[in-house]
Amino acid sequence: MSERVPIAIVGVSGYAGGELARLLSRHPGVEIVAAVSETYAGKPLKASFPGLAGTAAGAILCEAGGVDAPGVGGAAVVFLAQESGFAMRTVPALVAAGRAVVDLSADFRLRDLSIFSTYYKMEHTAPELLAESTVAYGLPERNLTAIRRARLVANPGCHVTAAVLALAPLLDAGLLEKQGIVIDSKSGISGAGRAKNDLLFKFSEANESVTAYGVGGTHRHIPEIEQTLSEAAAGESVVVTFTPHLIPMTRGILSTCYGRLTRSASATEATAILKEAYRDAPFVVVRDAGDQPKTKDVLGSNYCHLCAAVDVRTGTVIVTSVIDNLVKGAAGQAVQNMNILLDFPETAGLEGAGLWP
Amino acid sequence: MSERVPIAIVGVSGYAGGELARLLSRHPGVEIVAAVSETYAGKPLKASFPGLAGTAAGAILCEAGGVDAPGVGGAAVVFLAQESGFAMRTVPALVAAGRAVVDLSADFRLRDLSIFSTYYKMEHTAPELLAESTVAYGLPERNLTAIRRARLVANPGCHVTAAVLALAPLLDAGLLEKQGIVIDSKSGISGAGRAKNDLLFKFSEANESVTAYGVGGTHRHIPEIEQTLSEAAAGESVVVTFTPHLIPMTRGILSTCYGRLTRSASATEATAILKEAYRDAPFVVVRDAGDQPKTKDVLGSNYCHLCAAVDVRTGTVIVTSVIDNLVKGAAGQAVQNMNILLDFPETAGLEGAGLWP
Amino acid sequence: MSERVPIAIVGVSGYAGGELARLLSRHPGVEIVAAVSETYAGKPLKASFPGLAGTAAGAILCEAGGVDAPGVGGAAVVFLAQESGFAMRTVPALVAAGRAVVDLSADFRLRDLSIFSTYYKMEHTAPELLAESTVAYGLPERNLTAIRRARLVANPGCHVTAAVLALAPLLDAGLLEKQGIVIDSKSGISGAGRAKNDLLFKFSEANESVTAYGVGGTHRHIPEIEQTLSEAAAGESVVVTFTPHLIPMTRGILSTCYGRLTRSASATEATAILKEAYRDAPFVVVRDAGDQPKTKDVLGSNYCHLCAAVDVRTGTVIVTSVIDNLVKGAAGQAVQNMNILLDFPETAGLEGAGLWP
Amino acid sequence: MSERVPIAIVGVSGYAGGELARLLSRHPGVEIVAAVSETYAGKPLKASFPGLAGTAAGAILCEAGGVDAPGVGGAAVVFLAQESGFAMRTVPALVAAGRAVVDLSADFRLRDLSIFSTYYKMEHTAPELLAESTVAYGLPERNLTAIRRARLVANPGCHVTAAVLALAPLLDAGLLEKQGIVIDSKSGISGAGRAKNDLLFKFSEANESVTAYGVGGTHRHIPEIEQTLSEAAAGESVVVTFTPHLIPMTRGILSTCYGRLTRSASATEATAILKEAYRDAPFVVVRDAGDQPKTKDVLGSNYCHLCAAVDVRTGTVIVTSVIDNLVKGAAGQAVQNMNILLDFPETAGLEGAGLWP
Repeated sequence: MSERVPIAIVGVSGYAGGELARLLSRHPGVEIVAAVSETYAGKPLKASFPGLAGTAAGAILCEAGGVDAPGVGGAAVVFLAQESGFAMRTVPALVAAGRAVVDLSADFRLRDLSIFSTYYKMEHTAPELLAESTVAYGLPERNLTAIRRARLVANPGCHVTAAVLALAPLLDAGLLEKQGIVIDSKSGISGAGRAKNDLLFKFSEANESVTAYGVGGTHRHIPEIEQTLSEAAAGESVVVTFTPHLIPMTRGILSTCYGRLTRSASATEATAILKEAYRDAPFVVVRDAGDQPKTKDVLGSNYCHLCAAVDVRTGTVIVTSVIDNLVKGAAGQAVQNMNILLDFPETAGLEGAGLWP
Repeated sequence: MSERVPIAIVGVSGYAGGELARLLSRHPGVEIVAAVSETYAGKPLKASFPGLAGTAAGAILCEAGGVDAPGVGGAAVVFLAQESGFAMRTVPALVAAGRAVVDLSADFRLRDLSIFSTYYKMEHTAPELLAESTVAYGLPERNLTAIRRARLVANPGCHVTAAVLALAPLLDAGLLEKQGIVIDSKSGISGAGRAKNDLLFKFSEANESVTAYGVGGTHRHIPEIEQTLSEAAAGESVVVTFTPHLIPMTRGILSTCYGRLTRSASATEATAILKEAYRDAPFVVVRDAGDQPKTKDVLGSNYCHLCAAVDVRTGTVIVTSVIDNLVKGAAGQAVQNMNILLDFPETAGLEGAGLWP
Repeated sequence: MSERVPIAIVGVSGYAGGELARLLSRHPGVEIVAAVSETYAGKPLKASFPGLAGTAAGAILCEAGGVDAPGVGGAAVVFLAQESGFAMRTVPALVAAGRAVVDLSADFRLRDLSIFSTYYKMEHTAPELLAESTVAYGLPERNLTAIRRARLVANPGCHVTAAVLALAPLLDAGLLEKQGIVIDSKSGISGAGRAKNDLLFKFSEANESVTAYGVGGTHRHIPEIEQTLSEAAAGESVVVTFTPHLIPMTRGILSTCYGRLTRSASATEATAILKEAYRDAPFVVVRDAGDQPKTKDVLGSNYCHLCAAVDVRTGTVIVTSVIDNLVKGAAGQAVQNMNILLDFPETAGLEGAGLWP
Repeated sequence: MSERVPIAIVGVSGYAGGELARLLSRHPGVEIVAAVSETYAGKPLKASFPGLAGTAAGAILCEAGGVDAPGVGGAAVVFLAQESGFAMRTVPALVAAGRAVVDLSADFRLRDLSIFSTYYKMEHTAPELLAESTVAYGLPERNLTAIRRARLVANPGCHVTAAVLALAPLLDAGLLEKQGIVIDSKSGISGAGRAKNDLLFKFSEANESVTAYGVGGTHRHIPEIEQTLSEAAAGESVVVTFTPHLIPMTRGILSTCYGRLTRSASATEATAILKEAYRDAPFVVVRDAGDQPKTKDVLGSNYCHLCAAVDVRTGTVIVTSVIDNLVKGAAGQAVQNMNILLDFPETAGLEGAGLWP
């Protein structure tokens, strides 16, 4: 990593963008050459994220102009932290110009464009790019080889990351029935992003309260979970019931994942399967049966902690999975993908424990 | 209610006991004649619950001595807010002395004593009392007639109340399969009580964190849920997968309840069934499909809010249910039971909205 | 209270307005005949405050039209819970029509109109009304007689209530120097109101954070504190340094008030002065020296708890004062004022403890 | 830093000890050779701090035995994170054995032993060591030279760090009167440590609540603040009124510091004095007047943010100061002191922004 790779962050003033700035500013192999934000254009990054004051990154001036901002022209890797629809309009030109892209939106996650249209209420404008072999779904624990040769990485959704890491190895192993999976996911409020002004996200109404939303199969992460789990099930269709909830905390996701066993199995056996699956995964910690993870255990870190239990009375395996939604669920995983793409150590810039307590 | 009924609270310095004091101190038909607490004996109630300072209840002196405390001798109704095992040892004498009892522990909730022994790790010492017709399970929305003629009411568990109110009418209606029910329940930290010193309940470790516990079918509320739901299923055995979670808030439970449909049905139909079932229930609000409840909507009140959704892709009905764990999940429901027992209006002392926001 | 007094709430969908609805809906002497909200016009109150679902108040339909909404025509008392500037434009007509008014804004709090203009950046449009003897500053513990004969009550600011109740009796007693008073006040986020969309009030940014604002003498509550404390100091001018802070909680204010002693005095003596001053005040609890109050002690109640300490090393008295900013700091005090105005018991509809924990 | 310096942490399972483990485990110049905890002896560090799971530090086995634990014998630097009284008994032998010590307790902070005895209720057992020139008070921004040549560094208290960084430069500059300083400090609950079981620190009672404690001049940080500020005032005695408060958040301190101006001065001038004073201090950020810091701005980082305001009406300067109590207020500052002691770059292992949001 003697010479630093120039990178750009487009959409730097949102929570995922700010987290990219935090992580990349201390990454030994890269240099932030462009921080793009229409809201904070002309102001230093620390105006948006005061925690960066005193660091070199905090002094970087934000630029306007989206992917056409001058600074982006000097970047070898571009991170897109924007709403759906932005990437599919802008990525073709970036890739054509030889830049690698890590896209944190959903634009290049789903392979079935009719499903994309149904869930995202828009037509895809770059279907030809989506079909290319240089586009990879960016869940390194499931897709390492493809990410290595990619030029465009579609960074997964936060709930998807938590749920798929919990369930996929058990489907691989044939331990779970393909139907009847229930994923009950609890997310901190930062998952809603910084820009939305819904009363739900105001402190006075979110605090001391918990609620479900998107109940009944409407959440956009559902097709993404199903696409990835169906691969684990050898292509057989996996359909899930998924319910996200808002928890009065800033960061963190706990997904409680329920699947019916195809045969009798103990928590120890399920744990062993998970441990084997993630033997070489630097960011997945499989805890012993009974040692339930807390979201605080991964606060600010790129780790995912998993724990398997079995309810023998109902023949159900229950895997709990915790991540920090802004790190392993967004910016941290994006950096992990960049590391793989650039042939850096997978853990570069992501080492170490999160904040505790 | 011209003459006030004398009541006693045994175990007044815990959270449920304190909530009983708060509710009963403003109840128009009763008078607190004994507040029993070993920890605060000789001190006024406000020493334990400063929010009672300035009220008449705040000046009541706590007594030691359990059910043998002098003040209990003058009570017509005794509330027991103690750990499991206390009620079965003390209730027989109370009942024999002609006092009515509302017990907030689990001692008289389960009819199958072998299940009681399995989950509570103790033998029942008053099996003959449990068999009497004057013992009622205190979920008024399911058991009104029995509570009316009872002398001993077993107040339900908090998770049980939330889950059973959500699911029982749909089982009554034959809309749910008896197997495969998943109840994913989220509770505020006050549910753990005031006395336990586990690190899990310290502010610095509970805050900004969510975790599951008792995963895999070990929680004591499971047999109670199953006993009550099996009644709703016309006696057919209902077995559930139940997972409780700790949420960084003080009060509130949200139970997300998943059941497989026996036939095609819409959220509107499921909602209609719930509305019909609770037409005369003063404390159950069935919200329209899509209008998801938040625990803050019932903070400090005796209400339960329900909302039904259907995931047509997976044939699953999802009912979300919110209560305040210390009110409808404990002390408020106990007061509701007392009202029924004493032939007071069911809502006496429990009227009005909770705190919002 | 055999016949209920018809009352109207204008601005019912804000936090103070909603709290008025909660308190007045269970008040034995009044009936809500109009709930005015431009945002929720045509919708039931429970759409704005789901906690009211199931109560009669929750079904009241909101009206548009401000003080000209049809329902206001039937009200004997009108509560105004609006931004500054609204009351001074609308109150003259209301009073002329014979309605009593409790105004929760600052329009009629300050007697010096030049100070009003300086702090509120607008000219007063009803100076003649302000001068009338039927206008009273609504801090009952300091101004009971005037409120009794008033037709228009200016309900005090939340920080003002906490600070003045703490300091005024000590100034009355000549124990405090008039200069050098420091009031360091900590408020929950609901004090910012429901409508403002500042990032400061979003859960993700307010949580796990504390900050000062309006530092250096710019907060609008300063002249109101000084006007009231100067009266306590026999008209001698009292000037204070006041700093408000945002605390990651929904409700509550703790004001830590520092004053220099004019002579040697103990905490016990200061406590005795406070106890004597509030002997007949039903909502002020003076705690013994050393028994520091917590904002949770008054959560949801109309109480103010005070505690005096003395730092003998520096000759400073420190009075801590806690209130619920939406109750004693806004809606509860407004109801208390209405009770006095209507010759109801001062505590009607406000009895009982708040929520604990 | 080619060869890593072996370090030991004694008291590793408290919050300060855990934070030392987090910071030192990613420090490029040191290696943790001993982690001492009586509670977790024989267990890996991750059992105490699950956030360390997956890191090398998480696998380190805790040892019993205090400073006599075998691993301590191999350490060049020993961090003591223990209660008062521990260091004065154990440090003499450590220093005699040639080890450098950074002590996070108060044992070697106060030079006046009678004051130490008064506030800490114990006699000092190592007065001769305290008098040596190799003992330094570890506030690098005030005491860099002495720390450089020290063998024992007394790491300052958390409130002290926040308050002294705010006020000392203004005293240096003669801008503040020596008397009448008021320090109103707000701290997250982790400041109470991990071991104490007071109800005040339980989630259900700390959440949605704020309270003062140690009011009236009894807090142990007072003599430490006064000792350090008196030095800034050219040895003239500075006496302060100090009130700490508990805030419902895990980490963070905001100290609001009030001082009377000796002459007329603007916020801009006070800001300029602070900026000049901290020109070379890598961890102090002086913000422009009006740009109030939030504790979240320094969450998890070693920074202190300061902001000066002036209330011209009362001739008062108000400096707000935020730190993370576990980083700059404890473990981070200890690492900074170690860096200075070992001639490492002052920022080694402490670079980068904290978590935001």
